[in-house]
Amino acid sequence: MDKKVTMDKIVNLCKSRGFIFPGSEIYGGFANTWDFGPIGVEFKNNIKRAWWKRFVQEDPTTYGVDAAILMNPTVWQASGHVESFGDPKMDCKNCKTRHRADTLIEAHSKGKISAEGMTNEEMEAYIEEHDVKCPVCGKRDFTAIRKFNPMFTTSRAMTGDASDVVYLRPETCQGEYVNFLNVQRTTRAKVPFAIAQIGKSFRNEITPGNFLFRTIEFEQMELQKFCKDSDSMDIYNDYKNRALNFVEDLGLASDHLRYHDHDKLAHYAKAACDIQYLFPMGWQELNGIHHRGTWDLSRHQEFSGKNMNYLDPITNEKYLPTVIEYSIGADRLTLALLCEAYDEEELENGETRVVMHILPALAPYKVAILPLQKNLSEKAKEVYSMLSKEFMCDYDEAGSIGKRYRRQDEIGTPFCVTIDFDTLENNTVTIRNRDSMEQIRLNIDELAKYIQDSVKFN
Amino acid sequence: MDKKVTMDKIVNLCKSRGFIFPGSEIYGGFANTWDFGPIGVEFKNNIKRAWWKRFVQEDPTTYGVDAAILMNPTVWQASGHVESFGDPKMDCKNCKTRHRADTLIEAHSKGKISAEGMTNEEMEAYIEEHDVKCPVCGKRDFTAIRKFNPMFTTSRAMTGDASDVVYLRPETCQGEYVNFLNVQRTTRAKVPFAIAQIGKSFRNEITPGNFLFRTIEFEQMELQKFCKDSDSMDIYNDYKNRALNFVEDLGLASDHLRYHDHDKLAHYAKAACDIQYLFPMGWQELNGIHHRGTWDLSRHQEFSGKNMNYLDPITNEKYLPTVIEYSIGADRLTLALLCEAYDEEELENGETRVVMHILPALAPYKVAILPLQKNLSEKAKEVYSMLSKEFMCDYDEAGSIGKRYRRQDEIGTPFCVTIDFDTLENNTVTIRNRDSMEQIRLNIDELAKYIQDSVKFN
Repeated sequence: MDKKVTMDKIVNLCKSRGFIFPGSEIYGGFANTWDFGPIGVEFKNNIKRAWWKRFVQEDPTTYGVDAAILMNPTVWQASGHVESFGDPKMDCKNCKTRHRADTLIEAHSKGKISAEGMTNEEMEAYIEEHDVKCPVCGKRDFTAIRKFNPMFTTSRAMTGDASDVVYLRPETCQGEYVNFLNVQRTTRAKVPFAIAQIGKSFRNEITPGNFLFRTIEFEQMELQKFCKDSDSMDIYNDYKNRALNFVEDLGLASDHLRYHDHDKLAHYAKAACDIQYLFPMGWQELNGIHHRGTWDLSRHQEFSGKNMNYLDPITNEKYLPTVIEYSIGADRLTLALLCEAYDEEELENGETRVVMHILPALAPYKVAILPLQKNLSEKAKEVYSMLSKEFMCDYDEAGSIGKRYRRQDEIGTPFCVTIDFDTLENNTVTIRNRDSMEQIRLNIDELAKYIQDSVKFN
Repeated sequence: MDKKVTMDKIVNLCKSRGFIFPGSEIYGGFANTWDFGPIGVEFKNNIKRAWWKRFVQEDPTTYGVDAAILMNPTVWQASGHVESFGDPKMDCKNCKTRHRADTLIEAHSKGKISAEGMTNEEMEAYIEEHDVKCPVCGKRDFTAIRKFNPMFTTSRAMTGDASDVVYLRPETCQGEYVNFLNVQRTTRAKVPFAIAQIGKSFRNEITPGNFLFRTIEFEQMELQKFCKDSDSMDIYNDYKNRALNFVEDLGLASDHLRYHDHDKLAHYAKAACDIQYLFPMGWQELNGIHHRGTWDLSRHQEFSGKNMNYLDPITNEKYLPTVIEYSIGADRLTLALLCEAYDEEELENGETRVVMHILPALAPYKVAILPLQKNLSEKAKEVYSMLSKEFMCDYDEAGSIGKRYRRQDEIGTPFCVTIDFDTLENNTVTIRNRDSMEQIRLNIDELAKYIQDSVKFN
């Protein structure tokens, strides 16, 4: 990772330029929630659209859904989340804060020890032996490790009966599994086919942090591919490739990306792999590709009593499809792309410009319209009005032209169109490229097509 | 409303064609939640994009945000939701079901009596006097009326302290108010300007129903315009016009739409108005335009201790802006557009076709690619592959061509492209118009532009 990028710089730029604000900031914030501002909402929407275009629109075997966040509570029994979802937590008896034991161990050993395979007893022994202290108060006075289920619960409470607990979904993929039959029936899809979804999930994380990296509310982009078991490893490998190609195509550098195969697999799984990105805080998971066997459909078959078998129309075989899951966090990807795009460039005049080299297809604004002087604003607004039918555009008439270019560089606007006195004479404008800073002159009638051709995601 | 359209027909079409399924259906559903299927997710996304294009992208004075669903709990004290949000509910002591007293009265009087202005005592007296019975068990054995707060609550419960209640937001607009200073600072916007958002809200509705009309989880599209009080009524009227134009432009018929001014106003409001749509169950609210005075910003100023004043850069006046709110439910609008689009047409051969006359810009699939015979599928897949770079496309090679046209009519696909043997000879295809059912012949190279020009939303 380029040494120029630090998480502080990214957080500050996001806040000062309107990408991302701390959630409920005027009230002192809230539990690592984040609000996307005017620039950030466009950026994240463009990322989501690019994913949907690549994996749903352009793939004839993938179908989208948008399932409700609040689901029948039995879903989370079938999925195993009620019984066994959770992290090993300890409370500090001294300062009453809650911690994950595995995170404490990994932080104390500076990442050298992985607690992934440890039992609770092994973790407790390690903490005692190495005198691992509470990071908040500095004492070592922990409770025993207990499982903490990070599902948020609420209640319909319509009948005054407290037993009707409802969960905020901790993952979106159950929305695909429960709709497997509905989607197959209405699309008449043949295996292998996938169901895809973009939506919010919620986890009551004990230690959220690193900006958008781990939050209690986050957005997932994922798909579940239903296939014959004999094809499943080919499809798994195919999604490993496609997942990597996708994030590279969005602009993440190859040497900031790596595969990380899981050592330990769930009992039903044949393979599992993450793609990690080199964030400013180190290599961390960006997305996952998981072989899930027939676990999910068989559990829903068991708990719902509905036959989830697929009938092969050619061979007449009936079977539960194997599932390959490909999942990526929209917020994590947003963070990775912000880190990757950030640059500080020395200019010829000795000044430094901060520039976000965001892929034009993802840029919040595609073009900024800048009248050279205020008395050109009428013409400039005409151009804005024309281009804003096609793209998100910014309009700025305040300050020197150099200062206005810097502002657009900081939010990654690929093109700046300047309206000058020649514009009134011959209907031409200058259009400046963010990355090369070169300017060419174009007729206004050519602008929309010129920009359109440059901002497509293919 | 056209007599052909009934809610049952819409619900059935949605389920059978993949627009919308009951949430968690394999578990018997859940509390009037709905899952958008492959066709529905595209339709709803197109509606949201059309709104964003019209009110954010094309409006230089409007800025988007995407705020977290989970907010600092003090937000809901400032907004008044903790103290006074709610509906008058009664429990049936006999069958333990919960009901809204106002809804019972309105249903019993067949809509002739409005309970809007009644006190709890007046409602209780009416129910006794007119012997209004429990619609579930048929007895009249109610508790007294109590206020039921429909905010869903959950908890961070990080320290084992039960007092840290967290609410699922019951409306999105607080996300704009708390970010008023952040957005103004980062965009350097001058009053009047608006902050817009599309996002989910949650209400523990006592009586959800009428399909997408009233649900416990719903998506809002809304903006808050911050203005000088002296301009506020002009801006209010402007949004009344723009809101109506928008839904007409999406295809809702003028004679199915009407303004409904509120008789009773909140103490801080100068005006409030709904736009109602003639749903199959009658005239119901589709969206609202509300004059909110300085209530929201003044409350947040009071509860957060942050100065929310706007400094006019020309006059140097400092003041709290007045807010005009324009809000529309994405799910309600989806339902209205489904009802409006539905048609049963008698064909010349005496058969009936069901066709969804959805505005092409909103259609889930823009085009379906249909090889006339299976041995033309290679060429057809080439065309699919080319067009799916630009649009959501369907591909169908099963059944007679007439049957395939009918399937596309039912999901509102504006164009069907048929690949026949001439295609192999001269690279032309037939393209059939959903509404006129007329066909023309086009070169494959002209297809993308032809469709593009027809599916724009302006």
